[in-house]
Amino acid sequence: MRGKVAVIGVGMIPFGEHFNKGLEDMAQEAYIACLKSVDKGIDPKEIKAAWFGQWSGGMIGQGAQSGAMLASMIGNMEIPITRVENGCPTGSDAFRNACIGVASGIYDVVLALGVEKMRDKPGSESLIGAGGGKGGGLGSHPSWMMGTGGPSLQALYATRQMYELGCTMEDFARVAIKNHHNGTFCQYAHYRFEVTMERVLNSPIVCWPLHLLDCCPQTDGAAAAIVCRADLAKNYTDKPIYVLGSNVGLDHANYWDKHKFTEMLATVRAARGAFEMAGVKPKDLDLAECHDCFTNTELMNVEDIGICEKGEAHKLLEAGEFDMHGRIPINPSGGLKAHGHPIAATGIGQICECTWQLREELGDRQVKMNNGIALQHNCGGPGFGVSCVNILSRSS
Amino acid sequence: MRGKVAVIGVGMIPFGEHFNKGLEDMAQEAYIACLKSVDKGIDPKEIKAAWFGQWSGGMIGQGAQSGAMLASMIGNMEIPITRVENGCPTGSDAFRNACIGVASGIYDVVLALGVEKMRDKPGSESLIGAGGGKGGGLGSHPSWMMGTGGPSLQALYATRQMYELGCTMEDFARVAIKNHHNGTFCQYAHYRFEVTMERVLNSPIVCWPLHLLDCCPQTDGAAAAIVCRADLAKNYTDKPIYVLGSNVGLDHANYWDKHKFTEMLATVRAARGAFEMAGVKPKDLDLAECHDCFTNTELMNVEDIGICEKGEAHKLLEAGEFDMHGRIPINPSGGLKAHGHPIAATGIGQICECTWQLREELGDRQVKMNNGIALQHNCGGPGFGVSCVNILSRSS
Repeated sequence: MRGKVAVIGVGMIPFGEHFNKGLEDMAQEAYIACLKSVDKGIDPKEIKAAWFGQWSGGMIGQGAQSGAMLASMIGNMEIPITRVENGCPTGSDAFRNACIGVASGIYDVVLALGVEKMRDKPGSESLIGAGGGKGGGLGSHPSWMMGTGGPSLQALYATRQMYELGCTMEDFARVAIKNHHNGTFCQYAHYRFEVTMERVLNSPIVCWPLHLLDCCPQTDGAAAAIVCRADLAKNYTDKPIYVLGSNVGLDHANYWDKHKFTEMLATVRAARGAFEMAGVKPKDLDLAECHDCFTNTELMNVEDIGICEKGEAHKLLEAGEFDMHGRIPINPSGGLKAHGHPIAATGIGQICECTWQLREELGDRQVKMNNGIALQHNCGGPGFGVSCVNILSRSS
Repeated sequence: MRGKVAVIGVGMIPFGEHFNKGLEDMAQEAYIACLKSVDKGIDPKEIKAAWFGQWSGGMIGQGAQSGAMLASMIGNMEIPITRVENGCPTGSDAFRNACIGVASGIYDVVLALGVEKMRDKPGSESLIGAGGGKGGGLGSHPSWMMGTGGPSLQALYATRQMYELGCTMEDFARVAIKNHHNGTFCQYAHYRFEVTMERVLNSPIVCWPLHLLDCCPQTDGAAAAIVCRADLAKNYTDKPIYVLGSNVGLDHANYWDKHKFTEMLATVRAARGAFEMAGVKPKDLDLAECHDCFTNTELMNVEDIGICEKGEAHKLLEAGEFDMHGRIPINPSGGLKAHGHPIAATGIGQICECTWQLREELGDRQVKMNNGIALQHNCGGPGFGVSCVNILSRSS
């Protein structure tokens, strides 16, 4: 895909609690923001197809989705729309499928939009797990992971990271401290407050060793991106951002088949394929938006993407290398931890952040550009068996 | 897409009641049948990506899906897999996305697989509607269509077809008679028995004017197709079937916005785009597998696809033109009505039938080939607002 496809517009709504907005309202606001962001202007009729990220579907009282729902939301019945669901990477994979649609030569300009309501849920019938982090009940196969949720699944990894790699609860807390700090600069972030080591470590244990403040919040949100043929991009914007690589990686959905609990093969595979397609290496990245549904998850994924060796991430974090102005900033947006995690919107929200960073539009949370390359990553789904990586660049 | 993509293998399991099989068993059997159907042989490792059709997801106790589930089912973690959901056209759109994936140049050989369990359902919490036909509760937006199901929604159309177009309950019954007759020849069909006019008209009314035998059954099933770059197809088979056109059409999900109840704009739009892409016309078709979740739906969709004028389908049906050996056979497989409707498997099952027909492999249900072109169609989703059409051909 290297350089064939370009992002020409991105838009999102502030992530947070939107009890006063329906799925439709949120999708429409993100769509309009995205259209308006195309600096040379775009007629909505130029969009020829769309991919609609929506995770929860009929599971938590939002009704089944499908392309017709997005068509209604954006008032466009004249294009094909596919609903994509792929666990927590739903938004990233909707974006990937939109890019594939353009690369196919069938559609010149297409939309990827993800929207999720996590805060309005039915009562007792809901399977959303307890704890600050999103539960895993809904993402679980009924026979394979009954009773587990996000925190308890990630605790299996966290304890092993402590045992094998020497991570401590303080190391995990440093991810929260960094990402909450970053989030204070982002007007779209769900949580815009600093946390301290003391506050994280004194917050209630959700599932040992994960505290409440090690868990990302449940968040409502919507985000959208318009992508087009790279050779047409300059008709729409002076600052197109090119898609170099895009890939989904998978692993067993059931836990007894996992090879180990200090590495996510889904992420390893997604990143390997995306870098290969992009023709770049982890050292070329200027930033990464990396899945941190739990603090330990960020450390694991930074390693699995290849940004550092296994067991090194917590040391580099402590040394400040992942800070907003460090060697390779991780989650300058605040990450899922502070920016929030409205599942199908999360990945496309990260695409927004990467696009703004690459365009150097972000003022006081702008990271330094060297090569002008950013990586976006999500993982999740049944057994954290799905991962998606997109690599974006200022040059094609 | 004309001629860029070819079907090189298809496989399915007999549709029906599979209380003794899990989603996994059914998917695996369809996958293996599909691999075995590639007559010059294929190494599963040659498949480089997949699109996984699965409609019900977490809604009826099957657990959330995502690509990791199909990866586990087929034992291949090394490729990207996207779950597609798009209402009743879920399978057709998974196939369409697989074709787009090949057309993109990123993947040479890919898999589309759809699987659905409709017969094992939770008890009182299930929203599946009553009646022989599949209910619409699960496919409905909670605020827009509360309490409606497939039969009651289609009855809105059926009554209007009677009032405006002069259709009778006998006309609807003739669809059942034809499709059940066709189903008796198909070893994969759920129902393999003839029905008579008397039997249809004396079966219980589910929602007037639709009798139980006007409704398709709820069915378990799985189906798969392997598609590849057209220029590589002869490496795998002597009889590739080329994909000429593929499109999704949409319409409002809410009923108060429908323009009329004798036409489905989603189907009109899907067919128009697919024919345009294919560069062929309805008169060029040798057969169509056309969505008949209810008998009246087939008549409406045959018209909306453009096979005949509005209001003509019931007359042509009575004249025998849609019979297996008529001018343009409609649903030689038995259709949803007799072959069954395991939602995400349905569309890919129709692709199987079209492929076999175009290859002239079907013995006593083989239809006559003139141009060697077949059309496959599904409609459904919230408010029957989604439709998908794929057009296949013996020549590229």
